[in-house]
Amino acid sequence: MSANIGPELQRLIDLLAKMPGLGPRSAKRAALYLLKKREPVMRPLAFALAEAADKVKACAVCGNWDSIDPCAICADATRDKTVLCVVQDVGDLWALERAGAHRGRYHVLGGLLSPLDGIGPDDLNIGALVARAQGGAVKEIVLALSATVDGQTTAHYLSERLGETGVSVTRLSQGVPVGGELDYLDEGTLAAAMKTRRPV
Amino acid sequence: MSANIGPELQRLIDLLAKMPGLGPRSAKRAALYLLKKREPVMRPLAFALAEAADKVKACAVCGNWDSIDPCAICADATRDKTVLCVVQDVGDLWALERAGAHRGRYHVLGGLLSPLDGIGPDDLNIGALVARAQGGAVKEIVLALSATVDGQTTAHYLSERLGETGVSVTRLSQGVPVGGELDYLDEGTLAAAMKTRRPV
Repeated sequence: MSANIGPELQRLIDLLAKMPGLGPRSAKRAALYLLKKREPVMRPLAFALAEAADKVKACAVCGNWDSIDPCAICADATRDKTVLCVVQDVGDLWALERAGAHRGRYHVLGGLLSPLDGIGPDDLNIGALVARAQGGAVKEIVLALSATVDGQTTAHYLSERLGETGVSVTRLSQGVPVGGELDYLDEGTLAAAMKTRRPV
Repeated sequence: MSANIGPELQRLIDLLAKMPGLGPRSAKRAALYLLKKREPVMRPLAFALAEAADKVKACAVCGNWDSIDPCAICADATRDKTVLCVVQDVGDLWALERAGAHRGRYHVLGGLLSPLDGIGPDDLNIGALVARAQGGAVKEIVLALSATVDGQTTAHYLSERLGETGVSVTRLSQGVPVGGELDYLDEGTLAAAMKTRRPV
């Protein structure tokens, strides 16, 4: 970049540019915005980053990120202990919580099996999941994984591993998205929706 | 947002969502990314934000942002003192520097005149510009302002104010952008390019 941007500002722009959703140009725009909002946004953001980096930890039970351990969901006695929802990442957990789609607890894998990227079972939070399944309290495990090759590979592997524990293993249904127009759907989704059609 | 995101994490997401280019959803994604890159990105970013908030100041001469005052451009003796380029914002100065389009110095207005938004001459860095024009060293002032209504209003006002100082006032030419296809250009640009046509 330009030699005429001071080193502190350049370092800030370079770091902002590493964030997903911000490229080099929007990082500059963000830096200018922040410098104009030093007290209301910039300093609080610096503080919030440092504080979250210190305090937010992975829950020892489920892998969710929270400043308490066990996390607020695992500590919530009103949530169903018998149903575990397995997700790839904390972002997926947030999406399911936003939808209010699951009243049980979670288990965060921290990724998907991906032989091409060298990610095997030992790289994911799978041992703890099997231990929870064997613990006796869990009756059903819902695999809420992406409908991608890696997601399906992981779901297949987990259903085999968990099959030995006697827990019932389910997965999210596939079909037409709510509000989706048939005309714009891919063939795979349409075929799946037709195959698993249900009485009205 | 969800009640199941810890307060430290929620505060971080809320602050990230205020940045231009990041909405509530991409702020969550950014927060997850940062938590995964605590040492290489998150803590350095917290530090860079705090440091830039402390050290980066507006140059007392031209209004550019730098950690030294006068800024690196004003302090650079090799740059032409006789030509001043007037820009709306530091981002525009960076764009001109990136293009290597200007070897003189700059003057950052900090905005544009906008009667509708209640922004008048006293809200902008105009007094200092007139003083620089009267100082004797400056021979030409290039108005590099946006080709919008506010930009043209500001350019008109500045050319009247600066006309009294005897300095020659110019502005960027308008025309077909390099690489631009005529078919996709608006009528205003085409008309301007035709009106200011030049011998080949």
